Amino acid sequence: MDKTYIFGHKNPDTDSITSSLVMANLETKLGNNAETYALGTPNKETEYVLNYLGIEAPKVLNDGDVPDGANVILVDHNNPEESIPNLDNVNILKIVDHHCVKVSTSYPLYYRAEPVGCTETVMYKLYKENGVEIDKKIATLMLSAIISDTLLLKSPTCTEEDVNAVKDLAKIAGIDYESYGLEMLKAGTDLSSFTTEEILSLDAKQTSLKDVKVIINQVNTASIPEVMKLKADLEAGMKKEIESKGLDLFMLLITDIVNSNSQVIALGKRADLVEKSYGVKLEDNTALLKGVVSRKKQVIPIMTENA
Amino acid sequence: MDKTYIFGHKNPDTDSITSSLVMANLETKLGNNAETYALGTPNKETEYVLNYLGIEAPKVLNDGDVPDGANVILVDHNNPEESIPNLDNVNILKIVDHHCVKVSTSYPLYYRAEPVGCTETVMYKLYKENGVEIDKKIATLMLSAIISDTLLLKSPTCTEEDVNAVKDLAKIAGIDYESYGLEMLKAGTDLSSFTTEEILSLDAKQTSLKDVKVIINQVNTASIPEVMKLKADLEAGMKKEIESKGLDLFMLLITDIVNSNSQVIALGKRADLVEKSYGVKLEDNTALLKGVVSRKKQVIPIMTENA
Repeated sequence: MDKTYIFGHKNPDTDSITSSLVMANLETKLGNNAETYALGTPNKETEYVLNYLGIEAPKVLNDGDVPDGANVILVDHNNPEESIPNLDNVNILKIVDHHCVKVSTSYPLYYRAEPVGCTETVMYKLYKENGVEIDKKIATLMLSAIISDTLLLKSPTCTEEDVNAVKDLAKIAGIDYESYGLEMLKAGTDLSSFTTEEILSLDAKQTSLKDVKVIINQVNTASIPEVMKLKADLEAGMKKEIESKGLDLFMLLITDIVNSNSQVIALGKRADLVEKSYGVKLEDNTALLKGVVSRKKQVIPIMTENA
Repeated sequence: MDKTYIFGHKNPDTDSITSSLVMANLETKLGNNAETYALGTPNKETEYVLNYLGIEAPKVLNDGDVPDGANVILVDHNNPEESIPNLDNVNILKIVDHHCVKVSTSYPLYYRAEPVGCTETVMYKLYKENGVEIDKKIATLMLSAIISDTLLLKSPTCTEEDVNAVKDLAKIAGIDYESYGLEMLKAGTDLSSFTTEEILSLDAKQTSLKDVKVIINQVNTASIPEVMKLKADLEAGMKKEIESKGLDLFMLLITDIVNSNSQVIALGKRADLVEKSYGVKLEDNTALLKGVVSRKKQVIPIMTENA
């Protein structure tokens, strides 16, 4: 049986990396030949999780590494813009996700998406449905991603199912999820070792809001003023990206994970979209978006509507 | 709580009608306010099932009946071309399906598709997962659709999961599924009361194979020669549809459900696609496609590849 490539989205976050690992474990338990990959290296938050468990980071796939015709399983994404370049030419066996539907196929496949806060919450259900045991390591991977995606169950994307999964998984893992989760999130906010270019690509999603070509990048922090010290440098980097990628808008969300607000820096000819969507006035390209922490729930739909 | 509209595809087949009924039953049992509708009247095969159970046909939705912003659940389809005209403006809560992915959304939703022979096989799993009892009526609805979509478990679309579901459901329903299924399929092949226009729309799927605009219509029969007596009339009707809808190809599959072959009649400027896809020569617009019974598995992917 040919090997199945399992991977999450580009610029992988904790959900993409851990869901790939957890899905490969499930597939293996079900007797399938599957291997975990990633479309990028783990961020600092994910590194914290992998170090905590003593797990190695998945091998990174470069363009062309997945041959045409190969079997793949996508986790935590389905949008071709966030996937391998030859997605149209591979055989997608399964998708497990919690995002909007963007992929199109000419063949039926297993598609499992749910409107929950994290792919791992769907994975948690898949283990239960298939009667596969969740061990301590798998439980820790799952709960780490749910805490990451829901900012410790505080994001508006967080559902009752996410909360119940975390509570059950914390018991299995034998972890105080609140203190573990805060340490993990804080590890992710450490920007000290990054260049501006790196900060701008840490969790950058390139997508289209109707006809508007955008990058929406999100950086978590425990202190907005700390990150705003880099504003001039960040803006210079954003301008470069706008030019080289022909973007209409580059939106950087600096999200305060303690107080649940985001400072936005918006550049590009469609920066007006931010003002229109949130009823704010950009001053010196920036504004505070009160209560906004979720790109998926509080940014993309509203911006799409106004685009 | 606002009512949720549940419906299958246009030109509904037994799977679309029964899955809507079965999904509405599940949603109601889960405490949701949901109602069954249909995008057309039941065909003769489905009528046989509804009469057998003493169930009324779902109310037919006409264009505009589902208001913008309404909550909907799609079963047995996701392709906007086969759905309500304002699909982009409603809120799709869930999709339960077994087809290619064609829909695109700007919001996350519950999407459950599996590469099995019938939506009802997925529904069967959903009942199990949610711990909802399958009663005799629901079991009969489910197995009828699986038998219909898999031509009594003989189509290449039929999977082990479909077979197991039918066997279990037959026990619950207390039905000899083979004799019941054959009667049901035969009821569907009775064309005596139909005009040519009606035959041409019985199970017609309008779709695009890459840039090629097609209708692929399938008619089941126990005797191909019986249906071929209508060839001249059918061709006249097909030509009309090609002109009025600007089609590149109208493909009529006359499927022998006893011997598992299909006679194809192909008209339109891209009729060459049929010859190319099956290595046959159309003579007088027609050819026998040996062993071809599944539009989904043996027609659409091959035709798309050659388009």
